[in-house]
Order: sequence, then C-alpha cells, then structure tokens
Amino acid sequence: MKALRFEQNRLALVEDLPIPRIKGEAVVRVALAGICNTDLEIVRGYAGFSGTIGHEFVGIVESSPDHSQIGCRVVGEINVGCGECSLCRFGDPRHCPNRTVLGIQNRDGAFAEYLSLPPDNLLVVPDTVSNRQAVFAEPLAAACEILEQVKIQPGQRVIVIGDGKLGQLIARVLATTGCELTMLGKHPEKMKLTADLGIQCSELAAVNTLARSRYDIIVEASGSPDGLRLALNLVQPRGCVVMKSTFPGSVAIDSSRVVVDEITLIGSRCGRFAPALELLASGKIEVERLITSEYSLSEGIAAVEQAQKANSLKVLLSP
Amino acid sequence: MKALRFEQNRLALVEDLPIPRIKGEAVVRVALAGICNTDLEIVRGYAGFSGTIGHEFVGIVESSPDHSQIGCRVVGEINVGCGECSLCRFGDPRHCPNRTVLGIQNRDGAFAEYLSLPPDNLLVVPDTVSNRQAVFAEPLAAACEILEQVKIQPGQRVIVIGDGKLGQLIARVLATTGCELTMLGKHPEKMKLTADLGIQCSELAAVNTLARSRYDIIVEASGSPDGLRLALNLVQPRGCVVMKSTFPGSVAIDSSRVVVDEITLIGSRCGRFAPALELLASGKIEVERLITSEYSLSEGIAAVEQAQKANSLKVLLSP
Repeated sequence: MKALRFEQNRLALVEDLPIPRIKGEAVVRVALAGICNTDLEIVRGYAGFSGTIGHEFVGIVESSPDHSQIGCRVVGEINVGCGECSLCRFGDPRHCPNRTVLGIQNRDGAFAEYLSLPPDNLLVVPDTVSNRQAVFAEPLAAACEILEQVKIQPGQRVIVIGDGKLGQLIARVLATTGCELTMLGKHPEKMKLTADLGIQCSELAAVNTLARSRYDIIVEASGSPDGLRLALNLVQPRGCVVMKSTFPGSVAIDSSRVVVDEITLIGSRCGRFAPALELLASGKIEVERLITSEYSLSEGIAAVEQAQKANSLKVLLSP
Repeated sequence: MKALRFEQNRLALVEDLPIPRIKGEAVVRVALAGICNTDLEIVRGYAGFSGTIGHEFVGIVESSPDHSQIGCRVVGEINVGCGECSLCRFGDPRHCPNRTVLGIQNRDGAFAEYLSLPPDNLLVVPDTVSNRQAVFAEPLAAACEILEQVKIQPGQRVIVIGDGKLGQLIARVLATTGCELTMLGKHPEKMKLTADLGIQCSELAAVNTLARSRYDIIVEASGSPDGLRLALNLVQPRGCVVMKSTFPGSVAIDSSRVVVDEITLIGSRCGRFAPALELLASGKIEVERLITSEYSLSEGIAAVEQAQKANSLKVLLSP
C-alpha cells in the first residue's frame, strides 16, 4: 500500500508498504485524513517520530476481532495504552506511560491506505455526519476536552489565543457554552470564518486595547511561547489559563504572578471522541469551511507543504 | 510608638511614630508578631514596599467602630479591599486590584506596638489557643488554602517541596487528610521536626531515588525556581502542582510536558483565617516547636538577621 512516511529525517511517499496487521487489532481502510500541526512538527524533526505520519482520519473497517465493526465507517482514538498499568486500569490509556500513539509515537499512522488500531479505539460515525466532517473528530475532541476540565459558564469572559486549526475549533466549541468569547488572531481571512459565526474576533496586534487581568478563562492555542505570556497578562486573579500549544523548548513565566493572583494553569491535550461526534451530529458546529484544500495521498508531500503555509487551515488527504 | 520600618532601602527601628488611626478602622495593640519570608524579601528590596513591615500577629483591640471587639484578643486577615470593585463585591478582597496589604502593600504592618485594620478583618482567638499558637494563624491559613483549592484524598501520593516555615505548616495541614505524604528538604534538623510527627521526610539531594512522574500532588514551597522544575518532574500525568513560592524574576518551564501530560498548576497564596484558628483550637496541629527564637521589638533588626539564617524557622517579636 501507499503511505506518507517520515524516516531518516525526510518525508517520503512509500508505494510498497505491507498492510499493517497487528494481532488483536482492526484494519481500517482510510477514506479521508487531515493534516494537523503535530504532523508538521514531526516533519520538522521536533518530535522524534519515525514511521507513517497522520492521526486524523475517517475510514471503513476491513477486518476486526469484533466482527460487528466490519464494514462500519469509523473514527479512532489515537492513544493505545499498555492495558496493564494503573492508568490503563483506571480507564485512562491516554496517559499510559507505555502508550503508542497513531502516527505520533511507535505506531504507524493514518496517511496511508490502511491503518491498524484496537477495536476499542474505534467509534462508529453517525450516518448524518459526512466524511469531511468526521475527519475533524480528533481535533474537535481535543477542543471538547477543555469543557471536561474547566467549567465555563454563560457570561464568563473567555479568550482564545490563536486563529489556527485548533483555535478555530476551540472557539466553535466554547461558543456553545454561552460565554462572552473573543478570539485573538493574526490572520484576517481566518478570523473572518469565526466572525461570520457571530464570535467576536480581535487582531493580536491590537491586544493592548484589551483590559489586562480581566478575563475569567484564556485558552492558549497560538503555538508560540508568546501566547502563554500573553495569557498570563490577560487572565484575572483566580482565573484559569488552558494550555493547548506544544512547542519544543521551555517558556519563561512570571511564577510570582501565578502565585499572588492564584491563577490556575491547565494542560489540555486529547479528548474523548464521543462528545465530538455528538457535536458534529447535532449540527451545532460547522467545520467544513475550515478545509483549505484537498489532495490525494500520492500528492502527500505537496499537501504537507501547503499545510505549512500561513494562510492554510485544514488540508485533507484521500488515499 | 516603636516600629520596625523599611524605608529608603534600609531597615530601621523608629521610636517616635504616632499610633496609626485610620477612619473606620480598629486599633490593635500587638502582643506577638512573627517574621515571614515575605518580610525578608521586602528587606532585600525585592517587594517595593516602604513602611512598617510585618503581617503575622496576635493582639488586643484597643479601639474599634465595632465596640464588641474592644478588649478582645484577635488575629487579622491582612488584605484590605477597596470594597467597591467586582472582586470585593463578590467577597474576594484578597484579590482586589486596589487592595492594601498589612506590612506588604501601602499599609503599615505588625512589627510595631500598634496597628490598624478594618473591624471586619479581625477574628477573635479562642481562649484555648495561646499567643504563641495564634501568631501562626496567617501562615497556617495560607497552608489551609491548599485544601480549599485541591481535593486531597486519603492514600493519594503527595509531596511537599521545602522544609522552611511554610513547608512545615503545609506538611502538618496536609497530614490531616490521610494522604501518603513526603516532605523534601535540605535541613536535617528542620526535617526532624516533621519526621517526629510521623510524616515521611527525604533529603532533596536524594531526590533521584524518588519515582519520576508518580505523585498525585506536589506542593512547591521551596522558595526557589528549581523547586517548580522538580515538581514538574515528580508529578504524574493529570496530577497537580500547587505553587506557593514567590521569588523575583521568571522561571522556565517545559510547557509541552504540562500540555501532553495534562498537568494542572495552581497558584496559592493567602487563605481564610477561620479554618486555621479551628485547626489550632482542635489541637490537631502542633506549631510551637517551629519557633526558633523570640526577640523584643527593640531588637527587631537582630531578629530579622536571625530569621535570615538557614537554620532558622519562626522568629517572633514582642513589643
């Protein structure tokens, strides 16, 4: 089969890879996959991963130990725990220290004709959700994770920093809470997509016009160390900063400000898929306008180059 | 009256200060005061405060708009809000942006014969609590604040980093929860005070023998930037780091670790006094062994010098 692989610090399309068959797991024929910033970091060599990249997908189950899944259209949770450690036993394989992660850590990913995942990782996609919507299940689950970590109430003042792929999804999810939401971004054409939904948007360059220390909750999804520092400037005493950006290296924070103003910082990564699929099925979240372009897997390298451009949002790949 | 003041970057005993009389406030004759690390930071010129230092005290109400307080033995919450902002109206003057803070911010403090505070800030000390116990009410409230911010359950693995004045009180408060507690410190003679209570103690130098990423909750009270980095090494995925140390400058953290492992960092400062007084009255917390030495206010400069020594814990001042 064809697959887009990062090996020996180089991205390459491989044509003759065997279909992955792992004992006890299902084989999924990929119908559509999405490029995420994590993929771009892997391609920049920051993540130490080697293998088939990609973790956002929708596909059809070709074979599975759970025969009821065969032929079903599915999305898949990307973390596979060891099943034996205390975290796995408490139902949290997402944080298993020995986990593999689809296309990210010790497990070949979704930019291929076929992928392998345990049956328990797969969720059937409701018929009313199209492939072009379902492919957003993984990043939308990551956005929904915020609501499982922080109680956001109607009328609370909330800022999302970042108008990229994840920031856009987060803004759409948080808007469902009735909070008083502002998205800060750098790209007028991206912000317009959010503003068109009635969500307030503001240029990052004009951030000085925002009140300092006055916002209840800040979600930092800019992908830059500056975003966290800005978040700490904007959040009010006893407020909360949700950290979504991963980047290499460390970031310097004013820890005394965190202590004196009793600010809470919460790291937030992957989420459960079920709430994301429910949101997509409900029609409350519009995602298809975030698709910038679509490529075939054979054009995968060009697709990744397109995704790296500043004006890109979601770039899709179909095998 | 006599007062120990930090002015023009110099600590001095002033003999002829007028008794503070602020309209609408009570005057308290100080019976006993305690030296805190914040006082030492002010004296090092890090805090930008000028005036009478000190904020830990117990005393007798000399005069008050609330006549029922006169003659009572009291301790006092140190933050005085503006009374008008949204935080004050929601009952949180501790975070009022225009607050004054006894001996810390725009308000003369407790290392004096008399101090002034609003009647609402004063709490009557139960008869069963001695002055040498009551003088710990403020830092003990700061330790109790952790229990209002984080749910600590019996059997959870908890580490307190720091064997100083605050670390000691925090260890005593957390031990009441039934958690599996370890205090990390640098000073064998200080750790012995905690070990004598049946709390496990370990040398910071031997930290490499501790399991990485295995503790549910870490309380960082070391007063050093290294403490926060160590806390992030020890905390398990989805665990919580409570930040208690204030120090000048910034600290570099591995923010990707916080995101990927969904760690929560919580800044924690002042607490309510009522739970602290209850703990002291209950006899569940032993504090008097933490008193290293006692000085008269006239010897205040020597007392501060003593408090700066590495082997000191609580140094008291009596006018």
